[in-house]
Formats: sequence, structure tokens, C-alpha cells
Amino acid sequence: MPYASAPFDFDAVDLAAVRRRHHTKWEGAGDGVLALSVAETDFAPAPPVAAALGRALADGDLGYAPPGALGLPAAFAAFAGRHWGWHPDPAAAVPVPEVMVGVVEALRVLTAPGDGVVVETPAYGPYFRVLRETGRTLVPVPLLRTEDGWRRDTEGLRRAFAGGARAMLLCNPHNPTGFLADRAALTAVAGLAAEHGVAVLADEIWAPLVLDGAPGFVPYATLPQGDGARTVVLTSASKAYNVPGLKCALLLPVTEAAAAALRGLPELVSHRISLLGVLAGEAAFAEGDAWLAGLRAYLGEGRDLLTRSLAEHAPAIGYTPQAATYLAWLDLRGLPGGAPTAAEVERRTGVRLSDGEEYGAPGWARLNFGTSTAVLEEAVRRLHAL
Amino acid sequence: MPYASAPFDFDAVDLAAVRRRHHTKWEGAGDGVLALSVAETDFAPAPPVAAALGRALADGDLGYAPPGALGLPAAFAAFAGRHWGWHPDPAAAVPVPEVMVGVVEALRVLTAPGDGVVVETPAYGPYFRVLRETGRTLVPVPLLRTEDGWRRDTEGLRRAFAGGARAMLLCNPHNPTGFLADRAALTAVAGLAAEHGVAVLADEIWAPLVLDGAPGFVPYATLPQGDGARTVVLTSASKAYNVPGLKCALLLPVTEAAAAALRGLPELVSHRISLLGVLAGEAAFAEGDAWLAGLRAYLGEGRDLLTRSLAEHAPAIGYTPQAATYLAWLDLRGLPGGAPTAAEVERRTGVRLSDGEEYGAPGWARLNFGTSTAVLEEAVRRLHAL
Ligand SMILES: Cc1ncc(COP(=O)(O)O)c(C=O)c1O
Ligand SMILES: Cc1ncc(COP(=O)(O)O)c(C=O)c1O
Repeated sequence: MPYASAPFDFDAVDLAAVRRRHHTKWEGAGDGVLALSVAETDFAPAPPVAAALGRALADGDLGYAPPGALGLPAAFAAFAGRHWGWHPDPAAAVPVPEVMVGVVEALRVLTAPGDGVVVETPAYGPYFRVLRETGRTLVPVPLLRTEDGWRRDTEGLRRAFAGGARAMLLCNPHNPTGFLADRAALTAVAGLAAEHGVAVLADEIWAPLVLDGAPGFVPYATLPQGDGARTVVLTSASKAYNVPGLKCALLLPVTEAAAAALRGLPELVSHRISLLGVLAGEAAFAEGDAWLAGLRAYLGEGRDLLTRSLAEHAPAIGYTPQAATYLAWLDLRGLPGGAPTAAEVERRTGVRLSDGEEYGAPGWARLNFGTSTAVLEEAVRRLHAL
Repeated sequence: MPYASAPFDFDAVDLAAVRRRHHTKWEGAGDGVLALSVAETDFAPAPPVAAALGRALADGDLGYAPPGALGLPAAFAAFAGRHWGWHPDPAAAVPVPEVMVGVVEALRVLTAPGDGVVVETPAYGPYFRVLRETGRTLVPVPLLRTEDGWRRDTEGLRRAFAGGARAMLLCNPHNPTGFLADRAALTAVAGLAAEHGVAVLADEIWAPLVLDGAPGFVPYATLPQGDGARTVVLTSASKAYNVPGLKCALLLPVTEAAAAALRGLPELVSHRISLLGVLAGEAAFAEGDAWLAGLRAYLGEGRDLLTRSLAEHAPAIGYTPQAATYLAWLDLRGLPGGAPTAAEVERRTGVRLSDGEEYGAPGWARLNFGTSTAVLEEAVRRLHAL
């Protein structure tokens, strides 16, 4: 394991090893292409994660995960306590193979076919697809872009809830904008949800990746929930610790009403988790703090580099510096000749971005800066030519 | 990786390493307990599987699996050709995270809520649970136990199909009996299914584990299917190569009607596979033949040991020597004092079996002989005292 010896040297991305990877991000990227699309990073695994997986391999520990997910719920609860002062009950956690499976299954028990589900747009593409999969109806509420950055449209939410939406998929921190909601804005959502009986699925998969210099993350579960609120938090180590191929996430019911609903989940759902995802997630949350702190600092520098470089050399590309995630949301509509698609960007520059269309926003593109400064500098330099 | 150096020494099960495993089989088994329940083996991973996983770990290749599952469908197709003369079209394969997820999703597109689905009993417990999950109706058709071993009840199937069942979950080779159907019996099923328009989900996860000395496996897909038949085969490396925690399986539509139905699956289903499951499965099917041959021979000896030992020392335990799988189906009803539950067996002997109740057959128990001769001998010796 070449990586284990240099745990915190995020500069040391080994592009040869990364290009050998089979994961989706670099798939089919020829030597000339820099892949900055799919939400995976180019960094080596966190040392405790690599160690846990190495032990599992050495012991032939590749069988069925016990459905309670071993020490993962307790490790996450301790992590949430240390970082955010939130103390979820590990015994109430429901393991699921991934966050999006959790969304699908939770929607099935919290809403009925045809029900309206609020999604703030732009949105992570699979949000649209899970609504189709479950036969729920998309109720889009656009985020607002202001001088001060992205903002939630509380009035828009009120209208949607009053109009009969039964649930909301709340993405915080937000993919693709990197927007991080503050306590006041979240309290407003919780109040409206309680008032209108709207179930809230708070997708907090990105919470560990609030960047250095940004205000702290506020867990949705720490807000006043109101009587009978049906609130479920979704989390996973998969984004912060870069193990999305390992398949384990948690549903955390915040209220008794939510816990009661989750007791209606099919028995086998928690049997579908992967043992390696459990072991990696437990190691990450229990022993990964130091590595994570290094990563957050490094990603904060990446965001600053991007901000400076675009402002100086490509001011026609719109970018609101972000508080969280390693995904930058770029407005390409001001480029001379109009916004190129991501495919055109790749053809012209060799930089692979994700097309805004995927998020419901053609003319935009998402750039993944979860890579070394060297790769990021080269990629942004190429984008100057757009 | 201690195991890699002794690839074919199945006797060399390292019980200390096995007891360190976190998987379900040995979970909570104290030092005095021998766990012979959940369908996982105690053997070390096949060397090509261990090598593929080691490479993935070294390269930090833990991200999203490309939804087409890389070379896995082609590796399986070549395996099926080499071993059984069956040549499925790898381009038609639909990757799914596990066989049982494949069953759930295939039932959703092939049948309607409330539809009757035939399951031969005793049956692998999750068969009952996926019917509840999808709101389909169980139509049980008991297998017949004859002097010559287990046999399919073709007349019972005809009645069930004529009675309106819309699909059948065909488990071949069969868990828990280890029964392997011959071509004539399968041809009868295919004919009846075509006649009555019954969709067949052929779960062939155990096919690579036909034991030495048994007749060869007949793929359901090689039978005449009839016009418009909707036939889907399900397979995975997870049983034969002991990687059920890694989460990847394949749906193989056998007919155009089945392929058309599978095109209606939700888009995200194939995104839910685990990359490590893909890489392990591809290595297993492409490079695991020699190891598998060794395993089949070893398991054949285990079955023979069990047969002799029970006949000689515990003739009150009924057992029909089996052609496939490493799961022995034991009739405990003839024991003095009546059939003990698996919990009682564990309390009295320290041997953990699976209770027949789980398979719809109280009074029976399933014994997993996927372990070293030494462990098996000790376990069976303890059972003599029942
Ligand atoms: C907001 C959000 N939720 C969920 C996911 C996916 O999580 P999982 O792979 O656990 O389904 C992502 C992945 O990028 C994401 O950005
Ligand atoms: C007949 C049968 N089908 C399916 C499975 C489970 O396969 P998977 O883990 O891929 O869902 C098993 C596991 O023992 C089995 O015996």
C-alpha cells in the first residue's frame, strides 16, 4: 500500500495510480484528459480506512455484513458529537447500502405514490431519478443566487408546502453549489415543515466537508422539530472519505414519528449493506479526524486557488466561492459564443466537467476540485482558454 | 495476505483468522461454538480474487463502479461457455448489487402487485421476504422427497401455473436441499411456463458449486424457451467465490421479451453495484477455475464425510446426499425426544446450524459444510450426541 506511508500529503496524488483506477471518475479518460467530473477524489484512502480494508482482506472477511452494521452507528454518533455537538441515538440508526437507496426506501414509507416531493434546484441528478423510480412527483424550488452567494427560497418552500408537497429532499451542504445553510435558514425550513406536515429527508452526506474558513455545519436534527415531525437524516462516510464504491450509509430518524415510519421498511434493506463499507465507515468516523482536518484545509486552498484563478483569468465564468464540498458550480453562460456543453469543454480543453443539464441547469458545469493543486492548476489554466 | 501463499490448501482454514472476521457467519460465536449456519465458507479467498482486491486497495480504487460492471459480464459469459456450453450475451447483462435485489427489481417489472409467485419449498428464507417486500403473493409448491432424493413436483407446478401464478422463482441448484435438476425436469418446467405465460427467474447463484461425482449443471437458459417466454437468469460470484459482502450480481435476460421487461428497470439500479464486487467477480470468473475445481473436490469429500458419519453414528438424522452447494439439509424429526430447534442444538452441542423454520420447514436444520475437514469432523462428532 504505497499510500499508507504518506497519509497527509494530499499533493502527492499519484496520477498513474489514479488513471489505473476502474471507478467512474477516470473511466475512459485518455492520457490527455483531466477528469474533474464524478464526485470522487484523487486522494489516497485515509490511513485508518486503508488499514481496516487491509485487515479484512487478510482475514478473508468478505462475507455478509451483520445487518446492524457493527460499530458504524456508534462511531458516527461519536463523530457527530465531537464535531457538531449532535448526539444521535446509534440504536435508532437504520443501515442502508447507500444514501440514495435510503432516500428511495424512506420515500416509500414516508409518502405515497404520486405525492409531491420538494427538491431545491439545481440538484444532484439522482434526486430526479429516485422520484421517477418511486413514482413521486417533483416539486422544484430553485435556490436563489444573490450578491452574497446562494440562498434558500423560504417563500418558495412555503408555497410548495402549502400547495400540498408531502416531503422535501434537503441537501445540506448542497451539491452542486457548495452552499451551506445557517441555523436561521434551517430553522425556518423546520418550522414550515412542521406547520405543513412535510416529511424532511436531510441528506447530510457532505457535512464532514465544510471547508476551512467557513462557518460550522449545523445538523438539521439539532433544530426544534415540532410535534409529530417526520425527519430523517441520511449520512455516509462515502463522500468525505472517498469510498462510494463500498456501499454503506445510515438513516437516522430524528423523531419518534420518523422512527415509527422506518420500522415499516422491508426487512432485507439493511441486509444489503456491504461489509467493507461498514468496516471502512467505522474506521473513518472513529479514527479519521486528523486526516479529515488535513483534507478540509487542502480543499479550502483548492477553492481559493479556483476563485483567484477564475477571477483573474476567466472572469466570464461565474463562480460563487463556496463553504462546503469539493464541487464548484460554474456559470458558463457569460462565455463569448455562449455556454459550451461539458462535452464541448472536454473536446476543446481536455478537462472533463459534469454538465449542468444533469442538475437541471443547462449552461452551467460542475468542477470537482478534489485533486492535487498541480492537477487543479493545470485544469483551470486550460479552462482560461474557453 | 497470509492466504495467498497456500492457494489450494483448503485444510488450512485458519480458525483464529476466521473468528476475527466480522461477517455474519461467525458473529457472536464464542470460542466454544462452531458456526455452520450462514452460507459463507471458512476458506481463504481465491488467489485471483485476493489479488484483484489488493490492487484496488493499493490504487485507492474504491469509488463508484461504472454501471456496466466493466469486464464482469464478459468474464461470466466466458465462464458459462467453458463450463456449461452456454453462451449468454454479455451486452444484455444487467448488473445489480446482489441476486436478491435482482429478484426484487425483476419481479417489479415482470409482475404486478398481488400476483402469485411460485416458490418451491423448503426455500431460501429471503425468497419469502422479497415477496412481502414487493407485495406479491406466495404460491408454495413443496419439493418431493423420494427414495432417490429430492424431486420437483411437476404436477404441483402445473396446478399452480394453471391456477394463475404469474412468475416462478426457480432455485437451481437448490438451497437448502442441494438438489440439482436434470435436463428433463427443467424442460418440463420451461414447457409449462411457456404454456401458462409464467415468467421464470432462474436463480443459478449456486451453479458453479456442483460437487465432484455429481452430474453436470444444466443452465435453464439452454432449454427451449417457447415464444414470448419471459426468462431471466440470476448469477453472481458471491457464493462460489465467497464474496457475498462485496455486492455485485447479474441479471441475464434469456429472451427478447425478458430483455424488453428489464429495459423498464429504474436507471439507478445498476449504479448501486459495488466496485469491489465487480472487480472480485471478474477475477473469479476469469481466473478462478483451478481454485474452483479444488474447492468442488474438497466439498465433495465434505459431503461424503457427512454422509458416512451421520449414517454410522447418527442414523436418526435424515440426510439425502446432495449434488450441489455446501449446505446439507438435515431432518431432525426422527431424533429421540423430537426435533430440537437450532438454538437448542447450539446450546447442547456448540454447533450453530440454521433452523428449518427459516426455510418454511420446522424440524429441519441446515448445516454448512464449507469448512475444513477438521472443523467438519469435530462438528459432526458433536452432533452424534443429539
Ligand atoms: C448530495 C448527495 N447525496 C447522495 C450522494 C450519493 O451517495 P450514495 O453513493 O451513498 O448514494 C451524493 C453523491 O455525490 C451526493 O452528492
Ligand atoms: C439461492 C440463493 N439465492 C441468493 C442468495 C443470496 O445472494 P445475494 O447475496 O447475491 O443476494 C443465496 C445466498 O445464500 C442463495 O442461497
